[in-house]
Amino acid sequence: MTERKKIVIIGGLACGPKAAARARRCDPSAKITIIEQEENLSLATCGFPYFISGAISRANDLIQRKNDHFQDVMGIDVLSSTRAISIDRSAHKVTCTDLKSGRQSDIVYDKLVLATGSIPVVPNLPGVNLPGIFVLKNLDHAKAIHDSLISGKVKNAVVIGAGPLGLEVAEALVTRGVKTTVVEALDWVMPTLLDFEIAAQVGKHLRTKGVDLLFGQRVTGFENDAGGRVSKVITRDSAIEAQLVLLAIGVKPNVTLAKEAGLKTGATGGIEVDAHLRTSDADIFAGGDCVENTNLITGHKVLTPLGSTANKHGRVIGSNVTGGEETFPGVLCTGIAKVFNFNVGRVGLNESQAKAAGFDVVTSLIPGNEYASYYPNGKEILVKVVADKRSGRLLGGQVAGPGDAAKRIDVLATALTFGASVDDLANIDLAYAPPYNSALDPLHNAANVIRNKQSGLAKALSPMEVKELIDKGEDFVFLDVRESAEWKARRIDALQVKLLPASVLRTQLGSLPKNKKIITFCRTSIRAYKAQRTLEGEGFTDVSFVEGSITAWPYDVDESPK
Amino acid sequence: MTERKKIVIIGGLACGPKAAARARRCDPSAKITIIEQEENLSLATCGFPYFISGAISRANDLIQRKNDHFQDVMGIDVLSSTRAISIDRSAHKVTCTDLKSGRQSDIVYDKLVLATGSIPVVPNLPGVNLPGIFVLKNLDHAKAIHDSLISGKVKNAVVIGAGPLGLEVAEALVTRGVKTTVVEALDWVMPTLLDFEIAAQVGKHLRTKGVDLLFGQRVTGFENDAGGRVSKVITRDSAIEAQLVLLAIGVKPNVTLAKEAGLKTGATGGIEVDAHLRTSDADIFAGGDCVENTNLITGHKVLTPLGSTANKHGRVIGSNVTGGEETFPGVLCTGIAKVFNFNVGRVGLNESQAKAAGFDVVTSLIPGNEYASYYPNGKEILVKVVADKRSGRLLGGQVAGPGDAAKRIDVLATALTFGASVDDLANIDLAYAPPYNSALDPLHNAANVIRNKQSGLAKALSPMEVKELIDKGEDFVFLDVRESAEWKARRIDALQVKLLPASVLRTQLGSLPKNKKIITFCRTSIRAYKAQRTLEGEGFTDVSFVEGSITAWPYDVDESPK
Repeated sequence: MTERKKIVIIGGLACGPKAAARARRCDPSAKITIIEQEENLSLATCGFPYFISGAISRANDLIQRKNDHFQDVMGIDVLSSTRAISIDRSAHKVTCTDLKSGRQSDIVYDKLVLATGSIPVVPNLPGVNLPGIFVLKNLDHAKAIHDSLISGKVKNAVVIGAGPLGLEVAEALVTRGVKTTVVEALDWVMPTLLDFEIAAQVGKHLRTKGVDLLFGQRVTGFENDAGGRVSKVITRDSAIEAQLVLLAIGVKPNVTLAKEAGLKTGATGGIEVDAHLRTSDADIFAGGDCVENTNLITGHKVLTPLGSTANKHGRVIGSNVTGGEETFPGVLCTGIAKVFNFNVGRVGLNESQAKAAGFDVVTSLIPGNEYASYYPNGKEILVKVVADKRSGRLLGGQVAGPGDAAKRIDVLATALTFGASVDDLANIDLAYAPPYNSALDPLHNAANVIRNKQSGLAKALSPMEVKELIDKGEDFVFLDVRESAEWKARRIDALQVKLLPASVLRTQLGSLPKNKKIITFCRTSIRAYKAQRTLEGEGFTDVSFVEGSITAWPYDVDESPK
Repeated sequence: MTERKKIVIIGGLACGPKAAARARRCDPSAKITIIEQEENLSLATCGFPYFISGAISRANDLIQRKNDHFQDVMGIDVLSSTRAISIDRSAHKVTCTDLKSGRQSDIVYDKLVLATGSIPVVPNLPGVNLPGIFVLKNLDHAKAIHDSLISGKVKNAVVIGAGPLGLEVAEALVTRGVKTTVVEALDWVMPTLLDFEIAAQVGKHLRTKGVDLLFGQRVTGFENDAGGRVSKVITRDSAIEAQLVLLAIGVKPNVTLAKEAGLKTGATGGIEVDAHLRTSDADIFAGGDCVENTNLITGHKVLTPLGSTANKHGRVIGSNVTGGEETFPGVLCTGIAKVFNFNVGRVGLNESQAKAAGFDVVTSLIPGNEYASYYPNGKEILVKVVADKRSGRLLGGQVAGPGDAAKRIDVLATALTFGASVDDLANIDLAYAPPYNSALDPLHNAANVIRNKQSGLAKALSPMEVKELIDKGEDFVFLDVRESAEWKARRIDALQVKLLPASVLRTQLGSLPKNKKIITFCRTSIRAYKAQRTLEGEGFTDVSFVEGSITAWPYDVDESPK
């Protein structure tokens, strides 16, 4: 009989337990040990904001599998409340400290798995260690924030960082009745994930929910009250009252053990791994937040600290430490977040990332309905698709709004996985029935708009391009082709705006200048595009439409009734 | 100046208007005419069941674009209430009758588009023309059914045919308080779309909603009451009371005009078209329900009478009649239907279709949550994925349940479009956050189960295979590894069942026979699969698990508390 293979896994959150479970299924006789510094394995860290908001009522619901389950059902040894402090690669052993007893011990491995995760970035600022300032990474943090809110003493809060975690917690705070400000150093929400046009709609929504947004300002320090707790967050322009502060400016891979053991890390700061998730030591694998991944669009290395990736890593590693040959292809940096009543998702490259990666980019921006417009209670989404101008290859997409964004993001993720073009996307046989979709999905329409741009049929400007013309006071006609009832309800306020409804456009062409720049808009740009083509057919020489029209207009819209 | 191109389109429902609109955008000067026998163009026929149920309150909401819009905004001539009665291909003209005046006229075309749609199949049965027996194809039908229900005289109804339309209308009838029976000649709901295991869950759901289902019976005729209206539907075994009957046994392509004009039709009965949607006459294009499509999985010709396909056809045709070179690749026979609180979708080939097409098939059947199990109010779905055993290529999928099926079907549709394998599917970077998904999507799990079967790790039986063993009285252990609280709440009743919870399985192996057949089950099969691997590791020789376990068990389950 062969000896039992010794598999040791450092980290018990997502990748680690998954690797352990997979290894157990592949090799029923292996000796498998998980070392975890916290008390509980398998925590649903992504659920913390919903525990803070009260949507999830018990902290215990965030423990996905009890430690007993690993021991009893899977025969996996669990060393919880235990910290791995060093790795001796030549002796194939890990030295650990039992955090309760302080006792130190060595554990020998044949294969070692590093699933050490990530740690929140804490900026080096005056007062950053004051009581009342939190990060949100483990269950103790979540409980502390929760208890602090329950105490009723928190009236004002500041979230630093407008990424998904920051916005999820902002929603939780508002749900708890706390006046909340989000401070973001860059210029819009989710700035590294979303382009401005999409982020602007998310920002508008946050403001309607009472969240204050402060963009383009870095926090410079914190002040405390007489009791020594945080009382104010200081930025260049303001001092914001806050009895609770969340630092949500990002995480970095936890690679201390790996580095001390001499394993290679990449330029991203994550552990370098090959497609088998093997580190620079053939007996050590690594996965989850602590490693870098390959971006499937650019081929570049990126950090993608997400539970979805960590779980896929875990399976691959569990197979490979037991003799398998499984590979992990890479990531699309897919992400989604619930922001109050908005669903906000993105995948692949956004426009600025695509440009930075050297692509010549074509995009489309279209408002759509989540399902058939005549079916009751359907909600809107705003879709942006990014593609390579020459080849038509899809590069990425963003979807936001009260409607179903997740489905569209997942379709785009799947299409991007296979190198789809906009032509491909336009004809995918997606499921249609009125409660689920329109006959053509908004993604079909988004693909068709790009095809129309490529063929020269559609001449479109971005809202930002039009806004620049307006702000410069350029002499052009900003032609609103909606019907007058629509105009009365909401309008874009600009000197250049002229109303000429689509229903009378063909008969009142004489009222328009033939050789002046005309930019059309309507509610969603369908009529605006038709108007562009109509005017061109009648000999007008400089006609275009603004993408997304009034629905996607990222600036103020006048909604006072006329 | 060149002469205006004359484009004539016969059919104004979906493909026709879309072709017209696209042609207008491509060629602002073309003379475009739509001929439609009904009064209104652009009807939302897929919305009829929701008008009948009352979810959509006004019939006018089903008119997606008014005829005026085509005329005024798009400059398209609309001949409504007009029937095209013949095509003279050599003279390039269509003869029409104005259905109101009876006047006949000829319209000359450069390019002709046939978008003549489909017609409901009406079986040749005694009494089939009785008042109270309906098909549902045009707005008059919808209004007649609606008015008949509003009258309050309909207490009992029969729907003939358990396809999507039949089930959608059954729901509408129940919503209106009508006792409803669905009669289906084949053996389960949506029999040409779904495999038994999935259909069985839909059937169970329909029964909980009060719908009577009668399978394997053909209707042989109808009886009438003293007033001459339908009163009973007669089958081999029964006479079912009904004051209203819907014939929903399918549609056939409307190809009369095409055939009379000598255009080629295929073995399916639909008009033959090439990838450009050109018929056997280079100046005549055809699209929508009246043509046959290429199934992208098998390469075979199929009929897919759906608004989604018709709209895509319309765009391709609109481009091509104005000089473009656009192609339509084909279909995946994607379909979805709301059946009360169930979302039921399918794409590609189901298991029996795949076998019929000559594939050696491997499948997986897994219950899943629509999103993270700890996030509140998540609902279940049941997923079946079908793949080619040797290559692992995906062939199709089915999803049903109260949870989000549409997203998974659309992901599968996209993956199938690009010839994805189960390995590909397992690693697609789908969007993850607790309100939208688990870290691994049910599709990831479904792909992994197939990979586990392929590698020999997972040994699974279908529920049907296990049921056959039970019914034959075979001597095996049907091992329920759930905890006893779960067993008390619901059980599979069979002599072979033995309860041995996963939490004590490893310590009580002695109570199990080493060389007897053991089939494990739990709630969803995760623990059952673990138990299979555990027992194998301990030297048990014949262990497998039943896919989907008690959650997907398509037969009766004992839910009386113990």
